[in-house]
Amino acid sequence: MANDIRIMTEAELREVVALDLETVDVIESAFAALAGGEVVMPPILSMDLPAANGEVDVKTAYIPGFEGFAIKVSPGFFDNPKLGLPSLNGLMILFSAQTGLVKALFLDNGYLTDIRTAAAGAVAARHLAPEVVTTAGVIGTGVQARLQMQAAHLVRPFERVIVWGRDEQKAAECAKDLKNSLGVEAEIVSDPAQLVAESQLVVTTTPAKEPVLKAEWLHPGLHVTAMGSDQEGKNEVEAKALVAADLYVADRGSQTEKLGELRSAIAAGLWTGGAPVELGDVITKKSAGRKAAEDVTIADLTGTGAQDTAIASHVAAKLAGGDAGTVIKS
Amino acid sequence: MANDIRIMTEAELREVVALDLETVDVIESAFAALAGGEVVMPPILSMDLPAANGEVDVKTAYIPGFEGFAIKVSPGFFDNPKLGLPSLNGLMILFSAQTGLVKALFLDNGYLTDIRTAAAGAVAARHLAPEVVTTAGVIGTGVQARLQMQAAHLVRPFERVIVWGRDEQKAAECAKDLKNSLGVEAEIVSDPAQLVAESQLVVTTTPAKEPVLKAEWLHPGLHVTAMGSDQEGKNEVEAKALVAADLYVADRGSQTEKLGELRSAIAAGLWTGGAPVELGDVITKKSAGRKAAEDVTIADLTGTGAQDTAIASHVAAKLAGGDAGTVIKS
Repeated sequence: MANDIRIMTEAELREVVALDLETVDVIESAFAALAGGEVVMPPILSMDLPAANGEVDVKTAYIPGFEGFAIKVSPGFFDNPKLGLPSLNGLMILFSAQTGLVKALFLDNGYLTDIRTAAAGAVAARHLAPEVVTTAGVIGTGVQARLQMQAAHLVRPFERVIVWGRDEQKAAECAKDLKNSLGVEAEIVSDPAQLVAESQLVVTTTPAKEPVLKAEWLHPGLHVTAMGSDQEGKNEVEAKALVAADLYVADRGSQTEKLGELRSAIAAGLWTGGAPVELGDVITKKSAGRKAAEDVTIADLTGTGAQDTAIASHVAAKLAGGDAGTVIKS
Repeated sequence: MANDIRIMTEAELREVVALDLETVDVIESAFAALAGGEVVMPPILSMDLPAANGEVDVKTAYIPGFEGFAIKVSPGFFDNPKLGLPSLNGLMILFSAQTGLVKALFLDNGYLTDIRTAAAGAVAARHLAPEVVTTAGVIGTGVQARLQMQAAHLVRPFERVIVWGRDEQKAAECAKDLKNSLGVEAEIVSDPAQLVAESQLVVTTTPAKEPVLKAEWLHPGLHVTAMGSDQEGKNEVEAKALVAADLYVADRGSQTEKLGELRSAIAAGLWTGGAPVELGDVITKKSAGRKAAEDVTIADLTGTGAQDTAIASHVAAKLAGGDAGTVIKS
């Protein structure tokens, strides 16, 4: 048996795929497929390595109609910065959905995860944010703070961005980067309540374990995407906000009830709505999204294996016929 | 960041590691570590792909003291033989347990799984089979039938092997191969009861969903290793046999109660023993193994992530300092 396996490094992948509208459309198609009900997406495999302050997650999904399925491994080792290494790493493996043979190894160090995560934010904004967003706010100052604002700007080309973070210097660096990359006004605030008050679209991008966005800050015509929580114990948005909003949308209800903002609302006894509306339901119009300009909407993104299969398949399609990377015969 | 990732194909791996006593000792150390209680081994991630008659399993484990941990992906696509392809494939990824960085990719198409699985059979035989085994029997005629007998012969150098399978021609081919590889007498029988009656050590290696080994066939001085069941619905050994035996040993109780022979015994209401003795407990002498030559013992092997981490680490240690395979800087 001679099976060609294409191996791509992060640098090579960055030449092939970027956070653009094409990528947003690919991720939107993954969520639409999730709503179709024939996606197979097992629970996330998660392992703690307490001795190294590390964890590793494995996600996968089979989407009917896709030639391949991805298995994505995401290690997070939070003492790495002391060693001069990034905390997050990982790779994606693309398999043939017909034969199970390995087709490609994407040694992306988390790059594909970064852009498929940001692209999900754009999908949420496209379907839930007010039509007109002049000011966007981001809570958090890391890689996703930058990417989420870039993604949101693709679908809601706001004129001004506001950044809040616990570390004011990091917030200022993030604002400066966004000003340069998006060509918008960018500023920092010292009070996240002010950020929310002045924004029509807010994205929370923190690993917070206590809410960084209060229910009392919600105002008519606001959309919030909370994308930081992806584990039990994390919580960015006050539980009351989920029921105070006109619409709460999960990327995947079975995940947000365990790993997302919904978990805290259920634990607090506030959520009595049963299975939530999912993003794919809104995309495919099985459920209504925003009904009026003054509605308050909240999207809760934990990250799905379907996004990984979609982005990896997209990369493979772009590579088809070319000779990028390294090919190994196995 | 420059991180070297070593990539090894199946052919290259076969040059490095084989089913020998060194490998058996490595796998034994993994089971001993499991008994220590500080291994982290999450439940297996399993996904069905019904459209392709396929499935994929992901296993992993962190073993304290090991420099790395493996994530092993095993696709099984059972229509592949119609396409001239093997049903089983897959790869192992070795990560640093300190940083989570990818250290090696072993594109083994299941080879490392094959030998770590057979090595577990040898570990079970070493600790549970009678001291003297003159005749060994194997039920099943596939790759594991051959490898399990090779592995058992390393620790119990029997003089004669008996093979039974549903397909007599395949059984004859298996017997011929074992005669050549082990230099022992080898024969087939048409009745598995006869095989068990004449053997001191029997290994079942089938994907059976109904028992292929009956409780009434047990006899004094017999050890049985059942290694075929690794999924809900599979069952090789009649449930009554597990309680009729003097000792039942699981590779991992939390797995055998869901995926192994123990599942059927629990479902039948026959198993009232609670958490079973595990192979690691016997190795580390936390629990007694075989107490007398005439005891009947049964080992139930479902395959553990700890074995994958152990074999992948073993390969990495053998490769250290050399230049085998392909190195990619990521």
